[in-house]
Amino acid sequence: MAKSRRRFPAQTAATLAAAPFISTTATRAKAQASRRLGVALCGLGSLSEHQIAPALQKTRHCRLAGLVSGTPASVAKFQAKYGVPDRSVYGYDDMQRMADNPDIDIVYVVTPNALHAEHTIRAARAGKHVFCEKPLEISVERCQSMIDACRYAGRLLGTGYRCQYDPHHLECIRLVRERVFGAPVILQAGFAIDVGRPDQWRLQHALAGGGALMDVGIYALKATRYLTGEEPVVVSALETKTDPVKFAEVDESMAWTMRFPGGAIAHCSTSYRIDGIRNLRVDAERGWFELDPAYFYDGNHGRRSDGIEIRHPAIDLFAAELDDFAQCILEQRPSKVSGEEGLRDVRILQAIYESARTGRAVEIGG
Amino acid sequence: MAKSRRRFPAQTAATLAAAPFISTTATRAKAQASRRLGVALCGLGSLSEHQIAPALQKTRHCRLAGLVSGTPASVAKFQAKYGVPDRSVYGYDDMQRMADNPDIDIVYVVTPNALHAEHTIRAARAGKHVFCEKPLEISVERCQSMIDACRYAGRLLGTGYRCQYDPHHLECIRLVRERVFGAPVILQAGFAIDVGRPDQWRLQHALAGGGALMDVGIYALKATRYLTGEEPVVVSALETKTDPVKFAEVDESMAWTMRFPGGAIAHCSTSYRIDGIRNLRVDAERGWFELDPAYFYDGNHGRRSDGIEIRHPAIDLFAAELDDFAQCILEQRPSKVSGEEGLRDVRILQAIYESARTGRAVEIGG
Repeated sequence: MAKSRRRFPAQTAATLAAAPFISTTATRAKAQASRRLGVALCGLGSLSEHQIAPALQKTRHCRLAGLVSGTPASVAKFQAKYGVPDRSVYGYDDMQRMADNPDIDIVYVVTPNALHAEHTIRAARAGKHVFCEKPLEISVERCQSMIDACRYAGRLLGTGYRCQYDPHHLECIRLVRERVFGAPVILQAGFAIDVGRPDQWRLQHALAGGGALMDVGIYALKATRYLTGEEPVVVSALETKTDPVKFAEVDESMAWTMRFPGGAIAHCSTSYRIDGIRNLRVDAERGWFELDPAYFYDGNHGRRSDGIEIRHPAIDLFAAELDDFAQCILEQRPSKVSGEEGLRDVRILQAIYESARTGRAVEIGG
Repeated sequence: MAKSRRRFPAQTAATLAAAPFISTTATRAKAQASRRLGVALCGLGSLSEHQIAPALQKTRHCRLAGLVSGTPASVAKFQAKYGVPDRSVYGYDDMQRMADNPDIDIVYVVTPNALHAEHTIRAARAGKHVFCEKPLEISVERCQSMIDACRYAGRLLGTGYRCQYDPHHLECIRLVRERVFGAPVILQAGFAIDVGRPDQWRLQHALAGGGALMDVGIYALKATRYLTGEEPVVVSALETKTDPVKFAEVDESMAWTMRFPGGAIAHCSTSYRIDGIRNLRVDAERGWFELDPAYFYDGNHGRRSDGIEIRHPAIDLFAAELDDFAQCILEQRPSKVSGEEGLRDVRILQAIYESARTGRAVEIGG
């Protein structure tokens, strides 16, 4: 990691601008013909097994076409279930071989947070588009290196913000944009989970980069941004830790407050200690609406102050985000969950950590 | 006010300790005989007219026995409705005459925040017990002067925290105390109202001492204290203002976060701009519970993560708090909504304002 990390900043914007643009014509023509882009799953943990691989079966524009893993048993299980050929199976260290594999168009990076840059950049250098789980990475610099690498390769980078495909969230966004209840005044969002076993990578700072805030608090943060359509200008945060052994390396519980330029204020909380708060609420000038639960894979629903329920048929959010990403590639348009979007959240996450550490409100720069 | 304010600090604890203790025996004997203590309403605004005076008719241990006002029309209205005799009607400047009126045991101060000390001290000097609306006053020093004056006079001082008599809140307190869902991890509380007309005293700093935070945010603050049973150790706050004309002198919207010594974290919000958030929620180790609405005169109710509803028959909260205060006097026991309790909240309110002003987390001293 350390070696890779040092290498990335050398790719400055100037260098990239001068670099040759790699045409996506061949990929596009093939994909448009078959209507399905090949997706390689990079990281075969629980999320890939239980959510993403099954979701790929439900997509219209994608198919599971490759595997990247360091765990032979996982590879065997995925191959047996999904029939991925041996020639499309890779280790993390030989992803460059993908360059010769026309079956793979997209690499979906589902590895621990602090490996996202390494795996994304390898995929991009192999000429693949990259869809990466949230958080995009553990620092702004690493996020930028991923954006740069994909831009240099002429490939698209997306961030796995599935909630932006949830019709409940889309309905909430519409309520704000159309000022159905007027301008938002107070936003409230929180997501807390019992993280479970103490021996997992999520509790190791080197791999996770942070704890509850980076993993689930990010949902609350992101929601306040896409709901207001604004970038917060200042954040103030407090941390609390009740189990300093289990949470020796990462944050256990955090609460933070943000002010938006339009005058709205958001207060958010997160925790790794409990399955608890998982809501989203907007109090606007003439009414309010809320989702609770807001961030589940399914079962999200909500209500409005005028008595109207917010409830839509469940859709597979992973299938939806992947189909949209494939369409962005096919239609050569930007993704609403771009790498830049992922970077913006990481910048704010870092400001939240800084505020919690220093006890000072932190202004968030561009 | 300025004159009175300068006078109070001169009453030091040492002076008070040396002062003669005024016996309450006569008052107590009379009251126990009749079972009803005479209450004089000091301030005949909307709260007195629509809530407190009607509530007094429902009490078991009190009766409306006196009026203090500077508005003859209000006095006439109250006299006509409740038959208060002329001899028990006072102006703010001649409350000392109450000393000779055995019909009045308690003065309920319902005037603007920054007049509470003046009116409380006058009532105490006339030998009356004082029940004072929240916030107790607009500074810690003024709160202390009220506590000192009542102690010097040998009279009880209570703060109008009606929610601590709401069976829904009492149920929530029990859920935490008995650890029904384990220890609290994240508390969330907010209360926002559309304050209404721009020409009222609540928007004048000299009379109100603050805006939304002092008036309704205090409910959220207080709730986090009586739910945890702990005092917050540090607070971090942000303010936002969208209407700098209407809210030129006081805070419009605030969000703040507090950490408690047991490790719980609370995030709270308040606003004068909108009728919005009015909830209370505790996410604990093994479940959660919430009230929404939590702070209304009636209609409060809630739910628990185990599916059990929190719903009790409505009671008159003003009658309940007054009956308890009367019983405290009769039984010579302290009130759970003491003046000291009122002071503690004002100290935290000041820390919240300081944090919002300075952009720094503020530690809350004892």
